[in-house]
Amino acid sequence: MIHAQRIEKLVAELAQKGTDAIFIGPSTDLEYLANLTMHEDERTKGLMVSKSGDCFALCPLLYRQEMQEALGDGAAYEVWADHEGFRGAFRAGCEKLGLAGKTIAVNDGVRAVDVLDMMDALPGKYVNGAHLLSPLRMQKDETELALMRHASEIADAVMNDLPGFMKKGMVEAEVKEYMLKQFEKRGGDCAAFSPIVASGPGGAMPHYNRSDRALQEGDFVIVDMGCKYKGYCSDMTRTFCIGQPTDEQRKIYNIVLESQKAGEAAVKPGVTGQDVDRAARKIIEDAGYGQNFLNRLGHGIGIAVHEGPYIIEGNDVPLRPGNVFSVEPGIYLPGKFGVRIENLVAVRPDGTGEALNKLTRDLIVIE
Amino acid sequence: MIHAQRIEKLVAELAQKGTDAIFIGPSTDLEYLANLTMHEDERTKGLMVSKSGDCFALCPLLYRQEMQEALGDGAAYEVWADHEGFRGAFRAGCEKLGLAGKTIAVNDGVRAVDVLDMMDALPGKYVNGAHLLSPLRMQKDETELALMRHASEIADAVMNDLPGFMKKGMVEAEVKEYMLKQFEKRGGDCAAFSPIVASGPGGAMPHYNRSDRALQEGDFVIVDMGCKYKGYCSDMTRTFCIGQPTDEQRKIYNIVLESQKAGEAAVKPGVTGQDVDRAARKIIEDAGYGQNFLNRLGHGIGIAVHEGPYIIEGNDVPLRPGNVFSVEPGIYLPGKFGVRIENLVAVRPDGTGEALNKLTRDLIVIE
Repeated sequence: MIHAQRIEKLVAELAQKGTDAIFIGPSTDLEYLANLTMHEDERTKGLMVSKSGDCFALCPLLYRQEMQEALGDGAAYEVWADHEGFRGAFRAGCEKLGLAGKTIAVNDGVRAVDVLDMMDALPGKYVNGAHLLSPLRMQKDETELALMRHASEIADAVMNDLPGFMKKGMVEAEVKEYMLKQFEKRGGDCAAFSPIVASGPGGAMPHYNRSDRALQEGDFVIVDMGCKYKGYCSDMTRTFCIGQPTDEQRKIYNIVLESQKAGEAAVKPGVTGQDVDRAARKIIEDAGYGQNFLNRLGHGIGIAVHEGPYIIEGNDVPLRPGNVFSVEPGIYLPGKFGVRIENLVAVRPDGTGEALNKLTRDLIVIE
Repeated sequence: MIHAQRIEKLVAELAQKGTDAIFIGPSTDLEYLANLTMHEDERTKGLMVSKSGDCFALCPLLYRQEMQEALGDGAAYEVWADHEGFRGAFRAGCEKLGLAGKTIAVNDGVRAVDVLDMMDALPGKYVNGAHLLSPLRMQKDETELALMRHASEIADAVMNDLPGFMKKGMVEAEVKEYMLKQFEKRGGDCAAFSPIVASGPGGAMPHYNRSDRALQEGDFVIVDMGCKYKGYCSDMTRTFCIGQPTDEQRKIYNIVLESQKAGEAAVKPGVTGQDVDRAARKIIEDAGYGQNFLNRLGHGIGIAVHEGPYIIEGNDVPLRPGNVFSVEPGIYLPGKFGVRIENLVAVRPDGTGEALNKLTRDLIVIE
């Protein structure tokens, strides 16, 4: 069903931006507004929401049943068949809402070739609406927070099982597969993203995407994973040690741990994403490893793994209750190893931070 | 590496269409031109090819190594960092190629929000280039045909194993999983698409996407599957019977079989996609089941599972040597069962059709 309260908030957002309507293609925005997940094929489809709150669904004949079941009476339907193309249906729907010549935003679920065809079909000013729903989506309500807490509980439980599963000689891919199965077993929908298991020197690459290395004595192993639960994502990282760490490994680990804690502790009423980034980064810079931590500190999360607010230098928007984001500092020593520790943090009504992950952040040694 | 011969053909296509350049985002077009498969994230990236044959890569800093390894010296690089955004790099690259104010096509790998930003960054006439590479991609060369033959050999072999694997009581999902493993075992890259196993009444839905039903005595089971081999797709369908078919089942099966054979036989010098569709459709219509076969007869295939030429009423472009497409008639009886039989067919240099699938199309009964 179309989520009436969210449409209301979107209408307010459209008014504030001086935009007459937004066309939302298959995307997490569409999931958010209407709980509608659609197959991404070449057939142009989506939901137009006007600033009056009226909606029409641009609906390929093949998807009519699916869209009507999901959207119900909350929208008019402009149905088009393969041999017709979508332009006529799009124009008809827009004209009924009085959108000819108006300012129409499109979100990031729409293809360039389709917006070019829309411009041909209906004159108007088309604008980038990639971030138009961001202010709404950033502020999770209690229902959403409950789902996110549970998604993080599942991730915590799966991560907690890893020390009993991982051992020397095991290939990274086996650890990944194990986690995918465990997510399902524990009631998750699926993985929120392809998990990262980066051992030894691979851990020094923040976006390591291989999985063919066998775990070796003395390895630091970064495990970055998360699942979906009823559409909402978890995302956490722990770094394990296979056998006893060297002094250097322990030193680096403790710097990252202190940085992660400082990041979480910085979440207070009135602070911005930039403030939180700086608080965590300062620990790493003061320890002399600033050049080994070049990423942003974190990203917002919800239906999408990456959404607002971004915890990064330059983001000077105050954090607000209901924001949920990652705090994930790391130190990456090329050719040697890496350490990353990540929790999700939700901003409480009083402006302080609630860690959604409860699993220990202390170094776990796997003998 | 950028495929110089294909760029040459693209340049000729641009000239013919009166287009000054095309910007190609992550897509099968990009795979085709440069063997480059890219992670689809929110960072705008791709390859601009001008009608002079000059190229520049729009390259997020994070993907610099990956793009340079893939494209080599065949392109200039316009690199942009996260905090800068892509507009400056895009404008700079375009200005060096003299594209300001010119006609720039974008392909279907580009997002609407990005082409709107491009329009802001560089004035010009932006046009829909979704099908600009289609004439090139439709005409497979001998190397491509060899890969497609092999992809179909793998599919044939896996389909051939199914009667020995499937049995009453087995859930559809088990059959899917088995095929995915077999594709890999036999040297395929991966599945070309999520296979369809549609048993009993599910078979009456051409796009059945569930997999939780157990196979029952008397079921027709439609299995529609294919793999990739070195980037090229196979796609085939067979319909099996669990136990002996009824007279009605056998009758319907034979109509579809005759229709499929008529479609393949219709591939001759000078015929169009429409002619082939009509030849196969006539058999089904004459038997009184026209209203139970509402889909097009087939689609072209190559790097993408669906590409030109489409075998459909209205396509009056003559087929040409090197075209490869599916011939997949079906009869769908709502609430009862469905039958579909599908082979891939390549057009030979002499204009006749070569079936890439060699597996029998006769009804296989699984006792």
